[in-house]
Amino acid sequence: MIQLATEKHLLGLKGVPASEINAILTRAVFWEQYPAKATSILQGKFVANMFFENSTRTRFSFEMAQKRLGAQVLNFAAAVSSVQKGESIYDTVRTLESMGIDAGVIRMKPEGVLQTLAEKVKIPLINAGDGNNEHPTQALLDFYTMKKQFGDLKGLTVSIIGDVKHSRVARSNLWGLQALGANVKFCAPPNMQAPELVEFAPYVSIEEALLSDVVMLLRVQLERHEDGLFNSAAEYRAQYGLTVERADKMQPHTIIMHPAPVNRNVEIDDELVECDRSRIFSQMANGVPIRMAVIERALS
Amino acid sequence: MIQLATEKHLLGLKGVPASEINAILTRAVFWEQYPAKATSILQGKFVANMFFENSTRTRFSFEMAQKRLGAQVLNFAAAVSSVQKGESIYDTVRTLESMGIDAGVIRMKPEGVLQTLAEKVKIPLINAGDGNNEHPTQALLDFYTMKKQFGDLKGLTVSIIGDVKHSRVARSNLWGLQALGANVKFCAPPNMQAPELVEFAPYVSIEEALLSDVVMLLRVQLERHEDGLFNSAAEYRAQYGLTVERADKMQPHTIIMHPAPVNRNVEIDDELVECDRSRIFSQMANGVPIRMAVIERALS
Amino acid sequence: MIQLATEKHLLGLKGVPASEINAILTRAVFWEQYPAKATSILQGKFVANMFFENSTRTRFSFEMAQKRLGAQVLNFAAAVSSVQKGESIYDTVRTLESMGIDAGVIRMKPEGVLQTLAEKVKIPLINAGDGNNEHPTQALLDFYTMKKQFGDLKGLTVSIIGDVKHSRVARSNLWGLQALGANVKFCAPPNMQAPELVEFAPYVSIEEALLSDVVMLLRVQLERHEDGLFNSAAEYRAQYGLTVERADKMQPHTIIMHPAPVNRNVEIDDELVECDRSRIFSQMANGVPIRMAVIERALS
Repeated sequence: MIQLATEKHLLGLKGVPASEINAILTRAVFWEQYPAKATSILQGKFVANMFFENSTRTRFSFEMAQKRLGAQVLNFAAAVSSVQKGESIYDTVRTLESMGIDAGVIRMKPEGVLQTLAEKVKIPLINAGDGNNEHPTQALLDFYTMKKQFGDLKGLTVSIIGDVKHSRVARSNLWGLQALGANVKFCAPPNMQAPELVEFAPYVSIEEALLSDVVMLLRVQLERHEDGLFNSAAEYRAQYGLTVERADKMQPHTIIMHPAPVNRNVEIDDELVECDRSRIFSQMANGVPIRMAVIERALS
Repeated sequence: MIQLATEKHLLGLKGVPASEINAILTRAVFWEQYPAKATSILQGKFVANMFFENSTRTRFSFEMAQKRLGAQVLNFAAAVSSVQKGESIYDTVRTLESMGIDAGVIRMKPEGVLQTLAEKVKIPLINAGDGNNEHPTQALLDFYTMKKQFGDLKGLTVSIIGDVKHSRVARSNLWGLQALGANVKFCAPPNMQAPELVEFAPYVSIEEALLSDVVMLLRVQLERHEDGLFNSAAEYRAQYGLTVERADKMQPHTIIMHPAPVNRNVEIDDELVECDRSRIFSQMANGVPIRMAVIERALS
Repeated sequence: MIQLATEKHLLGLKGVPASEINAILTRAVFWEQYPAKATSILQGKFVANMFFENSTRTRFSFEMAQKRLGAQVLNFAAAVSSVQKGESIYDTVRTLESMGIDAGVIRMKPEGVLQTLAEKVKIPLINAGDGNNEHPTQALLDFYTMKKQFGDLKGLTVSIIGDVKHSRVARSNLWGLQALGANVKFCAPPNMQAPELVEFAPYVSIEEALLSDVVMLLRVQLERHEDGLFNSAAEYRAQYGLTVERADKMQPHTIIMHPAPVNRNVEIDDELVECDRSRIFSQMANGVPIRMAVIERALS
């Protein structure tokens, strides 16, 4: 793991100490309170959003953060680029670096590529999601959301429910929450469990998962699972969805989180998406100051 | 209909009073004359162009207007977004709102969604075209173009020729022109007529349509009509196209309009697109000050 | 050929005198040295990148240059535009011109369209690649890269190796290098030779091509060649690729160039892409000041 403190990259949260995470969270508080102070922090700096995998919210959130900081923003989306012609991710990033960008936000499907990439380029790279590996800024905004609600995260219980196996959000949350002293529990059907994570967090039943302070649902992509475990979205909802009935069994102080986009009436009932205890749209709002803090850090 | 005056949305022109329309047209005159005064009007404001349906000209025109006003612009196109993953339009708009955008320009295919959406979000929304329902800024720039030529629109006759049934441009023009006291006539083959509009404007023959002060042609998408009425573009042109011969029968002062993009030699002959009496490219030029006025209004 | 000096367009390098080329190269030196002086040169100016054919590097490079000069940038990509609906390139460019852009950078597949287009519009147009015809800014950055290495280009020998037939880079280099007094040699398999260029530069063997001061490789798109001359990338590499063995036979001072993106281990061995004598990523870096000089020129 490249050290955040020395390298300015943000490739993941695995191995990042609590002090680093807290420094980012604290700075985000500042940017949420005083957004107007940000407008010329990155004047004359060029940041590229390099998305080799589609995303609406994440790219938008980064672009908001970058523009609030006064940076010049260049967007790259693989679907409309020469990556189609076989240009490798490495060559693209090196190309944009040669052209003079000061930092890059990057999202891609392959795992294990980012670390090597970061060693080869001189500009700071911020991981906006790499395969099923990590999505550190999503986890940071999740921590920010939890801190707003509960203050210190030490001893907090967080249940992560759904397709853990394919979730970079679950992994980044796991590493960061452990560093911050929270207790993570997973809840997933057998075909969506990640065996290599069992040593870090237990898999519990949906009933037990509901008893945590935070109930975090993951987006389920049923089309990925053709092994017949769930024949329909309705079946998944019946077994693992946060239905109105299940929400009634949660503790009064428990909050609901989801990285979005939500499959309404699959992993969460429609009525719950914007209910009082849901923090789903707050999470998105919190993403902007978090990413401001991360980008500022990379470039300072 | 949400009131323009109180809500700042611009969802359509149906029910909007003449005074509202004229206020926008008057402000556009100012912006056309003094574009340099606009550059810091919206400094620090973030406007999102949310296009769930492709468009070149309209998005560009809005982006020009937004940037001339000094706003920060974020573009979203559904074709390269997670709408592919089933994210609903509502969730996307709410997401962008959560991230802190100050206003949204929105284009989408489904009809009837926009009104509900506008009731649920707090930011002003500007309709850049929703299905076959409305396209209010296109109509406003059309009125602006007519006013430049004729001054007051009271008593002006405007013929709208072509696929009225599928045209949001026709509908927005109808509602606005009626409010301004102009007389609208439609001219369309039977399969392109909108029966529900008959009570507002008569369908006339192509010969009669040519006698109006304004002859506005609509874009025809022949691939939409598989009922065999027109076997070819040539056949459509022969019956409803503005050919050079037909143009010769118009009154000397009559102008030609078209919302573009034009199908040359289908709804209008190639030689006429940029002829003296054509206002087609002027319409596009007029779109920028109109949209400046609309966006400024939404955010002031 | 429209005269650069009077028209401000940059459609190609054919017929452009050495003095013109050198003026651009000299100005690029200034922009590379003093980028900070550029930031308000084009304040309030709007430049549109109109890409009717996909490209990552070229669009990015232009956007960097435009934003460094302080211009407002609007991007258009055909794949997400109404060109799908049959809107012609001409109508699109005229539309954007009507909306008030001050200059346009344009890339397109069809050849022979650009000249006519430039005669019809009033804004300056910069060719970012038109079919197999020209790609003048790529050639200019190539000259800039050569000048950095060798000073004056008079008498320099430049070998261009690969698919000359389909290469706009080869053509723009040929015209410009001839104007500057350099000697061009082509090296290509029979099915990739352009017969009409034989009168301007000889075709030589790969062995002879390696002896030039500059060895420039072209991107090979094997999928274009179905005549069975090369059954595989390995076969092409064996006959025309710059392998490590072949690079050893070059003169010590010879530099390697490639317009990118590179097919590693096809036209050039992986180990050579970033070797000491490779200028591939320098070329990309040089593209930004070159394009700053070209855009500034178009708008001054």
